Amino acid sequence: MAEDVKAKLIEYRDSIDNIDASLIYMLSERFKVTEKVGLFKKEYDLPPADPSREQKQISRLRDLAKSAKLDPDFSEKFINFVIDEVIRNHEKIRKG
Amino acid sequence: MAEDVKAKLIEYRDSIDNIDASLIYMLSERFKVTEKVGLFKKEYDLPPADPSREQKQISRLRDLAKSAKLDPDFSEKFINFVIDEVIRNHEKIRKG
Repeated sequence: MAEDVKAKLIEYRDSIDNIDASLIYMLSERFKVTEKVGLFKKEYDLPPADPSREQKQISRLRDLAKSAKLDPDFSEKFINFVIDEVIRNHEKIRKG
Repeated sequence: MAEDVKAKLIEYRDSIDNIDASLIYMLSERFKVTEKVGLFKKEYDLPPADPSREQKQISRLRDLAKSAKLDPDFSEKFINFVIDEVIRNHEKIRKG
């Protein structure tokens, strides 16, 4: 690979790496809050999943994705991916 | 549900909604950069996937997850989820 091509690719990858670090730290914050929700749901005997809340989240994130020029279908896949992990964690908290 | 229980749940959900908005905007920025990478790879005839780069990204994000107190296995699932989408996009760019 020519040096200038390599340099451009490194420039892009440095930006991706910075964004990924932000995403990891934000995801960590998100799971801190959902862990509290899990403990709270256990305490008050609320179910781990809440389909009407999830439907609202999906619809809101699709709208946000449009305004951010991100593919809304990807945003829906993403939030489902995260919610699945949260529900697994809530089930663990409930049992544990 | 008692009013104070409902209020606490709303407080948690407001934080989750703020974090989700940040995540969507960061993901949009990430895909802006990877779209440039896709066009760049097409121009210089570079392959859509780069396993050695991906291995480095996974290992780095696992370390970041540990420092952020996020489950490293989840961080790996997350980055694989994002990379799969990026590769699909790069293949589309290559063909399109």
